[in-house]
Amino acid sequence: MRFENFPLPDRTPPGNVRVEIKAVGICGSDVHYWRKGRIADFVLTDPMVIGHESAGTVVEVGEEVTRLKVGDRVALEPGVPCWSNPASREGRYNLDPDIRFFATPPHHGSLAQFVDHPADFCFRLPEHLTHEEGAMVEPLSVGVHAVRRAGVSPGKTVAIMGAGPIGLVTLMAVKAFGADAVAITDIKRDNLDLAMKLGADVALNPDRDAAPQEVATWMRAALPPNGPDIVIDCAGFEPTLQASIYSVMAGGKVISVGMGCDHAHLPLSTINCKEIDLLGSFRYANTYPLCLNLMASKKVDVMPLITHRFGFTPEDVAAAFDCAARSAETRAIKVMFNLP
Amino acid sequence: MRFENFPLPDRTPPGNVRVEIKAVGICGSDVHYWRKGRIADFVLTDPMVIGHESAGTVVEVGEEVTRLKVGDRVALEPGVPCWSNPASREGRYNLDPDIRFFATPPHHGSLAQFVDHPADFCFRLPEHLTHEEGAMVEPLSVGVHAVRRAGVSPGKTVAIMGAGPIGLVTLMAVKAFGADAVAITDIKRDNLDLAMKLGADVALNPDRDAAPQEVATWMRAALPPNGPDIVIDCAGFEPTLQASIYSVMAGGKVISVGMGCDHAHLPLSTINCKEIDLLGSFRYANTYPLCLNLMASKKVDVMPLITHRFGFTPEDVAAAFDCAARSAETRAIKVMFNLP
Amino acid sequence: MRFENFPLPDRTPPGNVRVEIKAVGICGSDVHYWRKGRIADFVLTDPMVIGHESAGTVVEVGEEVTRLKVGDRVALEPGVPCWSNPASREGRYNLDPDIRFFATPPHHGSLAQFVDHPADFCFRLPEHLTHEEGAMVEPLSVGVHAVRRAGVSPGKTVAIMGAGPIGLVTLMAVKAFGADAVAITDIKRDNLDLAMKLGADVALNPDRDAAPQEVATWMRAALPPNGPDIVIDCAGFEPTLQASIYSVMAGGKVISVGMGCDHAHLPLSTINCKEIDLLGSFRYANTYPLCLNLMASKKVDVMPLITHRFGFTPEDVAAAFDCAARSAETRAIKVMFNLP
Amino acid sequence: MRFENFPLPDRTPPGNVRVEIKAVGICGSDVHYWRKGRIADFVLTDPMVIGHESAGTVVEVGEEVTRLKVGDRVALEPGVPCWSNPASREGRYNLDPDIRFFATPPHHGSLAQFVDHPADFCFRLPEHLTHEEGAMVEPLSVGVHAVRRAGVSPGKTVAIMGAGPIGLVTLMAVKAFGADAVAITDIKRDNLDLAMKLGADVALNPDRDAAPQEVATWMRAALPPNGPDIVIDCAGFEPTLQASIYSVMAGGKVISVGMGCDHAHLPLSTINCKEIDLLGSFRYANTYPLCLNLMASKKVDVMPLITHRFGFTPEDVAAAFDCAARSAETRAIKVMFNLP
Repeated sequence: MRFENFPLPDRTPPGNVRVEIKAVGICGSDVHYWRKGRIADFVLTDPMVIGHESAGTVVEVGEEVTRLKVGDRVALEPGVPCWSNPASREGRYNLDPDIRFFATPPHHGSLAQFVDHPADFCFRLPEHLTHEEGAMVEPLSVGVHAVRRAGVSPGKTVAIMGAGPIGLVTLMAVKAFGADAVAITDIKRDNLDLAMKLGADVALNPDRDAAPQEVATWMRAALPPNGPDIVIDCAGFEPTLQASIYSVMAGGKVISVGMGCDHAHLPLSTINCKEIDLLGSFRYANTYPLCLNLMASKKVDVMPLITHRFGFTPEDVAAAFDCAARSAETRAIKVMFNLP
Repeated sequence: MRFENFPLPDRTPPGNVRVEIKAVGICGSDVHYWRKGRIADFVLTDPMVIGHESAGTVVEVGEEVTRLKVGDRVALEPGVPCWSNPASREGRYNLDPDIRFFATPPHHGSLAQFVDHPADFCFRLPEHLTHEEGAMVEPLSVGVHAVRRAGVSPGKTVAIMGAGPIGLVTLMAVKAFGADAVAITDIKRDNLDLAMKLGADVALNPDRDAAPQEVATWMRAALPPNGPDIVIDCAGFEPTLQASIYSVMAGGKVISVGMGCDHAHLPLSTINCKEIDLLGSFRYANTYPLCLNLMASKKVDVMPLITHRFGFTPEDVAAAFDCAARSAETRAIKVMFNLP
Repeated sequence: MRFENFPLPDRTPPGNVRVEIKAVGICGSDVHYWRKGRIADFVLTDPMVIGHESAGTVVEVGEEVTRLKVGDRVALEPGVPCWSNPASREGRYNLDPDIRFFATPPHHGSLAQFVDHPADFCFRLPEHLTHEEGAMVEPLSVGVHAVRRAGVSPGKTVAIMGAGPIGLVTLMAVKAFGADAVAITDIKRDNLDLAMKLGADVALNPDRDAAPQEVATWMRAALPPNGPDIVIDCAGFEPTLQASIYSVMAGGKVISVGMGCDHAHLPLSTINCKEIDLLGSFRYANTYPLCLNLMASKKVDVMPLITHRFGFTPEDVAAAFDCAARSAETRAIKVMFNLP
Repeated sequence: MRFENFPLPDRTPPGNVRVEIKAVGICGSDVHYWRKGRIADFVLTDPMVIGHESAGTVVEVGEEVTRLKVGDRVALEPGVPCWSNPASREGRYNLDPDIRFFATPPHHGSLAQFVDHPADFCFRLPEHLTHEEGAMVEPLSVGVHAVRRAGVSPGKTVAIMGAGPIGLVTLMAVKAFGADAVAITDIKRDNLDLAMKLGADVALNPDRDAAPQEVATWMRAALPPNGPDIVIDCAGFEPTLQASIYSVMAGGKVISVGMGCDHAHLPLSTINCKEIDLLGSFRYANTYPLCLNLMASKKVDVMPLITHRFGFTPEDVAAAFDCAARSAETRAIKVMFNLP
């Protein structure tokens, strides 16, 4: 990992704004790229600027841009689709195979002093929200998208597997969408304490080697009368997904968000006989305005998730990534860069 | 397996009709119960009358029944739910935990001379349909339910894994729902020949040990430009489900109908990154009137599936089950009992 | 209107419980039947017990009933469908043409000392809820059903036409389902004051003769940037429905709940060009458990709606109906009977 | 109406192709603009090239275009949205307020020798389809969009009000989507004859002054047992919409496609008590590939709709519009220009 100069063009291109970046959060995938050079099928071959949870201030406005002006503080939606494929045209632009996404090879990320970004993917921050909150729209979007895939609403009970950063933003989204009750589980007790503070109704702290069927029995008891309508697996390991499938009530939904493993052994006959919807959830689409509304109206408060802050020097960056990578010890949830 | 006398009450109960059974098909699950005493989590502990694909003629009408009369020929929907649970009240009565389903322990089946059955679950056959076609409504319902779960319609391409009885009725349903194109695969060449006659657009006959990724590559090529929108796995083995997941386009649906195995190793990161809906499909609900319409209007012709017919003597029953169990040799698709 | 003795059978029928009624609310339809003998296509020909918003205590349990016992306090869902029609089997039992609904001719209502009612339609009250709250589940259900038809969720803005009893329970449901913002309008200022206390974000008090286009202009300004995603018309008069259609954004939904008039002159080309979903909403299905959860969790508090209380003597009943009928003067929202 | 030279730029712009137009159909809206200068809220203020049902051959390919080449025959989707508004991003780009649509003021149409059009909205014709069929994709799209809004599928019966060009393409779409039965009505007997040839199951030819309730009674009898699940009003007059609402079964859908009148007096209490979905349908989105597939697979044959053909001289244009405008006498369904 190193600092490098990436020259920008003299002028930001038409349709774009140049943003002076002020806040960038570190995501688990950034840590994956840093340590392993890959995540799922996305593999690094060349050096890449990382970072995709970001907000900043507009310093230049390109031609044809009418909705933003210099000085606007904005959250940057990191994925910019093209609109010529059916997925995008049908409203699922997160599935565009040609999407340019910050810090997904071969596209650079946004942990930089300035970036040029299409104005249509820069969302003005309401006055009383901070740049840090703007950067947090990105992880919150992951939770909101999963919750939309699940159809969370009043009348539904929800179980969440994993109380890491994604589990916790998902919890916030589940609450905002009005679920009747939410249970959450993690092997880290600290994270569960935070989850309870953030509104979980009940928390389970199993041993690392608890049997999935055991966790499921507990979950079903925690969400009477029939167990969860919806389970959102924010961990993505074989045991958590097994526990999700065993937990959920007949006719229910299991949403898979976490990327803990590439393959998992799953109880197929349970999926069939309970007629479960097992739904993958990938990034998000059409979430930024909603997330900003949720924050502006105080229905969601992401600030308790930001546990560590760093500046933007080579030493800071090294320390920040180290802090994020060793979260078991540092108890880091979200590590945030504040740029000058 | 044996013949036995099961005395019926003097009169058929209120709300019921007594049906003289005329045609009963053998289902794979009947064969499972016969050979192994179980399927998935359903386990036989006591002797049970088998059979649940059935049609017959009403010979007595219970009190309160107004829609049927003696002499009506009817198809029997085998699962009778109660209506006090939320699943039933929300339209998914196939998920009622207390459903009484023919030949699912502890409930007896319909391979008998007479059965009493609620009139609301007996559907009058249009004049030109036979009892055999009435019995075939049951397996066709499995296909129709899967196709509804999948949302098959014009504009969608579909791949079907497995060309056995369920694969073939699913093919018929896929065609009736207007899919743009249908590809089907099986290791049995005969079944594929029949599938092509029944309207499949393209068929693949891989080796028993073909790699799932290979099958997927072929499927994607067979259904241009992007591979199937929908894959329906009517086999339910680990390799077929893997091939389904690898085949389907991003944002697509995989329906799991087959019960070939209890557990399977699945590519979880593919489910996530392609944001797949993997949907279990269990029996059916609200399919009988539709299936009868499909047959009456000739949009679906199930007769080519009935490959073997037997009478109803102990020797016939033994021979019929043997024929169904050794389908690889006998080339049986659907084995049908014709009762006197 | 008069008191009369309706003898009940010696024993409550199988599947039923006998409930000693403790609280009954007066609904606008009760007042309609009282004054005009009809509402919409429902016409009174014989004397009828009125009342359908009710709760009480179980005093006898019929055969086959296992989920309730003597002493249980319950809310009574007033409509009992049969399950032999497609609408019921598909989850829309409110549309069963043969539904028996309290106080809808020819079925008697529940404003009586004792009623027999199917146990499956009696819902146990959580411990800290009162009988009055139990009776309020019925009107709240109307709001919840409309809100479900509308698909209210975070990310949606909602306008409500009318702040009478149905408008106010709809407001509560809209808030519970997480709408971003809610605007409400009525010609009665008092009702709007209550609506603001109950969480409306903005209220409009137009003149009785305000033009629908004017109201729409205001609504669109009140819910930036594009006007309401959803409008719920709880009044049901021609001008409110016109204002609803003019207000809603392109692609939005207008839910018609109110029964103010039988026919209305509507801007059809606006419905077409904005591709509006204009959805009728009739009673409710599958709402009782959800409403009890909303009350038990304090997400909804219906008590401020109960403005007047009466006992159960002939004088009380006369006074109560008079109070409800002259709500413009009495400022009655919900008039409630407390039975001894 | 006159011929005029509209100079094109020297080179087709980036992302565009230049298409030599070969076939253009006349739409009812073209006739409206010609005679009245307006339709619904769209008003002509300046002279405008008309025409939006068109196909042609690519003669020049702009920069950045990779999917088309010179010589490709293409159907032109006439509406080009921008992608910065929520409607477009959510898959409903037909509702983009800034859409540029051929022959909708202030945008010129495609009845011209050459037009420049974004390559993403030009769809290559399968080899055996003609330019005329390519032009017909546009009206067929209107039918397909209505049918998708309606959720037509096997198990549904459909009534169509109006057997003009839109009624007939809707009929074709209804059949392709697998409806159980289709009834159609028009006051013109000739059109009904054509509808029956095209696959309608039953046709009603009422007097011009038949009461809507009468038409509804007939429709309900024609589609047993409960009347139509879905009614698609392709005429858009007050009596046809009233008949639609009276015809449809409880819980059914009425789709409003026709633009016969701006306002209509509607039975609101029927909409409420039957809980009808009354859905406006405006143009279409994501229909072109599907329509080309329907034609290529022969599931839809639009050729019988083309009743009159004209060349492209001033005299031809005058004669063609006259023919289309006097369709009652000329029996014109679709009038088509063939350009040299």
